[in-house]
Amino acid sequence: MSPGEVGPLRKAELHPSLADPVLDTMNFLNEITHRYPEAISFAPGRPYDGFFDVEEIFTHLRRYLDHLTARGTPAAGVRDALFQYGPTAGQIRELIADSLRKDENIDVRPEAVVVTVGCQEAMFLVLRALIARPDDVLMVSTPCYVGITGAARLQGIEVIPVEEDRSGFRCSDLAAALASERARGRRPRAFYVVPDHSNPSGTTMSLQERHELLALAAREDFLVLEDSPYRLVSPGRQLPTLKSLDREHRVVHLGSFSKTLFPGARVGFAVADQPVVDEDGRTGLLADELAKIKSMITVNTSPLSQAVVAGMLLAADGRAAELNTRTSAYYGEAMRAILQRLDECLPQQDRDALGVRWNKPEGGFFLTVDTPFRADDAALTRSAEDHGVIWTPMSYFYPQGGGHHSLRLSVSYLTPAEISEGVARLTQFLKAESARTG
Amino acid sequence: MSPGEVGPLRKAELHPSLADPVLDTMNFLNEITHRYPEAISFAPGRPYDGFFDVEEIFTHLRRYLDHLTARGTPAAGVRDALFQYGPTAGQIRELIADSLRKDENIDVRPEAVVVTVGCQEAMFLVLRALIARPDDVLMVSTPCYVGITGAARLQGIEVIPVEEDRSGFRCSDLAAALASERARGRRPRAFYVVPDHSNPSGTTMSLQERHELLALAAREDFLVLEDSPYRLVSPGRQLPTLKSLDREHRVVHLGSFSKTLFPGARVGFAVADQPVVDEDGRTGLLADELAKIKSMITVNTSPLSQAVVAGMLLAADGRAAELNTRTSAYYGEAMRAILQRLDECLPQQDRDALGVRWNKPEGGFFLTVDTPFRADDAALTRSAEDHGVIWTPMSYFYPQGGGHHSLRLSVSYLTPAEISEGVARLTQFLKAESARTG
Repeated sequence: MSPGEVGPLRKAELHPSLADPVLDTMNFLNEITHRYPEAISFAPGRPYDGFFDVEEIFTHLRRYLDHLTARGTPAAGVRDALFQYGPTAGQIRELIADSLRKDENIDVRPEAVVVTVGCQEAMFLVLRALIARPDDVLMVSTPCYVGITGAARLQGIEVIPVEEDRSGFRCSDLAAALASERARGRRPRAFYVVPDHSNPSGTTMSLQERHELLALAAREDFLVLEDSPYRLVSPGRQLPTLKSLDREHRVVHLGSFSKTLFPGARVGFAVADQPVVDEDGRTGLLADELAKIKSMITVNTSPLSQAVVAGMLLAADGRAAELNTRTSAYYGEAMRAILQRLDECLPQQDRDALGVRWNKPEGGFFLTVDTPFRADDAALTRSAEDHGVIWTPMSYFYPQGGGHHSLRLSVSYLTPAEISEGVARLTQFLKAESARTG
Repeated sequence: MSPGEVGPLRKAELHPSLADPVLDTMNFLNEITHRYPEAISFAPGRPYDGFFDVEEIFTHLRRYLDHLTARGTPAAGVRDALFQYGPTAGQIRELIADSLRKDENIDVRPEAVVVTVGCQEAMFLVLRALIARPDDVLMVSTPCYVGITGAARLQGIEVIPVEEDRSGFRCSDLAAALASERARGRRPRAFYVVPDHSNPSGTTMSLQERHELLALAAREDFLVLEDSPYRLVSPGRQLPTLKSLDREHRVVHLGSFSKTLFPGARVGFAVADQPVVDEDGRTGLLADELAKIKSMITVNTSPLSQAVVAGMLLAADGRAAELNTRTSAYYGEAMRAILQRLDECLPQQDRDALGVRWNKPEGGFFLTVDTPFRADDAALTRSAEDHGVIWTPMSYFYPQGGGHHSLRLSVSYLTPAEISEGVARLTQFLKAESARTG
């Protein structure tokens, strides 16, 4: 547009990422949810909120303030810890490092932790730091959480999908993808994965694959971005985190309190203990670089939010796992219930006949249903309209296309009665849609 | 680095913005402050904290929850408003729009507001949305707040300084810079300015310049990014905001509650009522596009923080100005005191002889002192070491160099006694340094 010729902003003149479907992924889903309010929705991945108690916010906040006082912080210091700008890297890093040691056997210095505005900001910071050149690429286990692909798209970063097979992530597939990327002149800098009860697929990486992945990362010189928010809200013993197995600083652990404490805090963190050497031979930590970037995005994470999170952690002597015995039992029961109900509504013979199958996660919020028909927006609309049930097309989670014959079910936000009725409706939809397209 | 050849991360392999001095601007200052803890520091731009009261956080939070209940929100809704993920664009947009109308005569629909993690995130979002092509540039009034240049550098955005003259911003200088940028094939998309009591210089844009700027923006088709956090904490009547004068959607107003309420909330906002037309002719708001970007950076602003901010606004029926009668008087007195003390310590004749001068802001936190010597890191070190006084080199605020003979003084964080003693020390430094270099 030449000078003098003015008008409204044209979308085509805004940043190209705004035209990227990834940034709009959830729009259609929100629209459908809004249009069919009576439908049972297996879409939202938000935590169950029945255990939240407003009064506890006050208690937790008070506990943290008392903790500061008990540690000898003068009244003015306690006041400033809530009201003022805080350190960019966060003011509860010690408590987080302590809880990581107790909950996850992750042993890092507080200096390696950067407190972020949810795990989303941690992803954004890590990508900004690591992806430096036009030929740098991010590898992602696929189907893949949209938060990481969205953060990448905003920064113009090329995302290379490495597809899971039916049982989940295969290190050999990653190795092949790395070789192929290098062959076409790309530099794979990092690999993003949700190793436990993945969002969206529900798969879990085996212990052997974890060890192989770490060996591959060391050999091929890339970092593993480990995002694992569902561990402590899943029943039973979990496999070790990649970070706890990491002896060569190959893993950046992306942390979230949204599932284990509450989403409204918007407190997450990155554990980035990678040494970074500058031209003069001085060594710092990757965490320092992340904090530098953060200072130009959000300055610091709300000290008020951090205080409430700290109060919660202090309530269980730093053990977030202990705060989640009720929730992990609840989600575990929800997963058990949906799997049992699916089996009731579509016994093995029936589902084989239809060409429908699903996986059987042992934790987390999600499972995958494979369908003989395209589980796309049109099918979703029929599902909501004709059968009163909503789910998420798995294709939303394929950064470069794919996943057209799968859908994601989330069990985290529904009551047992809704799960039971929802699966009955879903069964009707699966049958009707199969008949329609078969 | 070829496969197999592994080692620590090299800083040179990280994102180039991390090597940019803007991202390190404050590092030396922090180091000096740490090294000379007894020095009086005119550096920090943080608000005075003597009026903060920890108990008020509890009261404000309770007030907002009661407000929701009084408006008919069921208990589960009140609970979820604190604990759950909130809307990406924010859940207190109505209250913010209401307070903008009452405080600033800015009349926009709540839908034009996006609540952000401090004003910093608002800057980041706006730049990401507007700067779309390699030839797009951001114009900035200079000396310039580092938050905007830092956000630009992180995104690889070219920043074109438009230097203030002694009395402040000149529209004619911007017009010349625009022409020059267009002549070399650049597309100026936006102009960033702090019109009132600018950080760092302390200058205020006249009413006439405001009108001229808006006319220029319409004529030359760029947006004005108005960042004005010091208005309500300054004494007396303020000139109208650019946004309140904006009849053609040319101004994006960047809002902050860090100075008017408290920094620890990390709540800011963007007012972006610009229509955006897509290829199919559908019109949305720039605010919608900002929210889309935000969903991939921080997902949403902490509902907990928003709740406390809302409780504060509700305490004064939405009038943030009313909440700041004490603070604006305090800062006004601090500014009056430093100007008077400077005049006492360096009367006109003495400062003329030295070649020192300063401006006389009527509000805000900052003033500029011009020096006959280079006010650089070395001079700052001597100032701290030999005279026990710290200030900010103005050169930090010149994105492409300059400002070597000025320094910034901030009065917001010091007591009257500290100001008095600090100016005495500064005078000694100014004399010693002038003698040294003269």
